[in-house]
Amino acid sequence: MKVAALAGGVGGAKLADGLSRLDPAVDLTVIVNTGDDFSLFGLQICPDLDTVCYNLAGLENSQTGWGREDENWVTLQEIQALGGPDWFQLGGKDLATHLERTRRLNEGQTLSEITKDLCSTWGIDTAVLPMSNDPVRTLVETEGGTLDFQDYFVRQACQPEVKGFTFQGASEAAPAPGVLEAIREADVVVICPSNPWVSIDPILAVPGIRGALEEKIVLGMSPLIGGKAVKGPAAKMYLEMGIEPSASAVARHYGRLLKGLIIDLQDRNLIPEILGKVDSSLAVFPEHILMKTREERISVANKVMDIASRLVKET
Amino acid sequence: MKVAALAGGVGGAKLADGLSRLDPAVDLTVIVNTGDDFSLFGLQICPDLDTVCYNLAGLENSQTGWGREDENWVTLQEIQALGGPDWFQLGGKDLATHLERTRRLNEGQTLSEITKDLCSTWGIDTAVLPMSNDPVRTLVETEGGTLDFQDYFVRQACQPEVKGFTFQGASEAAPAPGVLEAIREADVVVICPSNPWVSIDPILAVPGIRGALEEKIVLGMSPLIGGKAVKGPAAKMYLEMGIEPSASAVARHYGRLLKGLIIDLQDRNLIPEILGKVDSSLAVFPEHILMKTREERISVANKVMDIASRLVKET
Repeated sequence: MKVAALAGGVGGAKLADGLSRLDPAVDLTVIVNTGDDFSLFGLQICPDLDTVCYNLAGLENSQTGWGREDENWVTLQEIQALGGPDWFQLGGKDLATHLERTRRLNEGQTLSEITKDLCSTWGIDTAVLPMSNDPVRTLVETEGGTLDFQDYFVRQACQPEVKGFTFQGASEAAPAPGVLEAIREADVVVICPSNPWVSIDPILAVPGIRGALEEKIVLGMSPLIGGKAVKGPAAKMYLEMGIEPSASAVARHYGRLLKGLIIDLQDRNLIPEILGKVDSSLAVFPEHILMKTREERISVANKVMDIASRLVKET
Repeated sequence: MKVAALAGGVGGAKLADGLSRLDPAVDLTVIVNTGDDFSLFGLQICPDLDTVCYNLAGLENSQTGWGREDENWVTLQEIQALGGPDWFQLGGKDLATHLERTRRLNEGQTLSEITKDLCSTWGIDTAVLPMSNDPVRTLVETEGGTLDFQDYFVRQACQPEVKGFTFQGASEAAPAPGVLEAIREADVVVICPSNPWVSIDPILAVPGIRGALEEKIVLGMSPLIGGKAVKGPAAKMYLEMGIEPSASAVARHYGRLLKGLIIDLQDRNLIPEILGKVDSSLAVFPEHILMKTREERISVANKVMDIASRLVKET
């Protein structure tokens, strides 16, 4: 099976990691949100690409899911001492990624090329593609004004109430090389349990990607379980956008893009509502989808592939 | 006494540090070479400013004289693992300086302003001024072509034979705010035992500085002892430029700019040659000038001030 997965954030990285460790292996391409990317200290930082890559490489901090295991904070402490911005957790190992990526970008290499090289160094077999090599910036509209995503997400710890999202530059951005091909060649496209508003929507905002998905079997997984996000502000965002957070809201969010949606077993009571109000043709699959351990990532990924096979056969 | 000191490199930083720790204190301004400055990973690195500041703050690596004590190499090791450039010793503490300086430069602050702020954070009372806020780049002409200074100095470990030096941008550079004032107001200007070719000459190449020095009592200290550099490539450079390396060569290098020159006691036999061939009016002072410990920096600085007082009284 050829699989293309759309991912961003820790939830997306976990399922992508599970899919990458299946036996027998699936031919996997992970297309990663770059709307979170930002510049700090003159360095280009790509949090979602890093989270996905560190997880695929098994280098991730096992407590947080992002950043590197056994990190070193000497540089961040010195930055604090100098009165510099210390709100972004710049670990010493992670910093090397930002430094080397920035160096190569400044030399004229593309984000795609650099990501491929870094993955090779980290021993990652899975193809990891940024959604675009062009700058797309997720802006969060709040009561207090428009915020850069990292400002909202990290510095202000998702406290401001959101009113909307803008993906600046998206309409002029091109999918990175290989993105449309990976989607077109895929037997199934998986939308990982990432934040729909700020991890998946930026990918869908890149011209050509949504259109390519409309031709495919797309299987989503809800990032909300029992109306709550496993991690991050997805549920809070739904509430603030005036939508009751639930797997049903996720189904409505992606709408007719989805052929199937995997929801948590505890949300199976939502199936009638989803079929009745959202899309009666949507195939909804209740499963245990919480991924606390690497083993659970693999078992959830196995369920995804079972369901994907069924969808492929039925089509 | 008001003193302005020209400095660059470890030798210069040591004497500047000694001068800053005298009791009673002297009113000291250190004017630092920025011709070595360069960009790596998109960061603006100012090696001589850092060496001077770390020494004045007592934060320097006591073995090397540059960089920070108890450094951390996690980031550099990761850069190596990623195949990035690892020839410049980027310690984790030192890195914070480069990151924060770059951030502030990108925000539009000047190198002068940033240096003043960093010095304040590090508890440095001495005024430390970059020679210029404009880019000046020391280029080393070698048999194999023109090299950026750090490429020659660090990456190629001073191996290429030098044929000359260019201070790119110097003719369009302005002295940083306070530089000419510090020189004009000084009772004596000290040229520290820094490399004349690549630490002091770039400072003298900034329009206005040499002219300001010509009005002052200038007291130099030879960086060569017994024909050898205490540290660095100064002696090798003299040889490759066709000049026998010695305190006499240093006297000739600065010529009529100097009112006095302090040489090492073991070079006192050179005094007749200096007076006969270089400048019969030059006051030459043989002293123990090797600074291995912080105490020796202070005792050498005390000698400098004694001699400076004599020169001031005689004038």
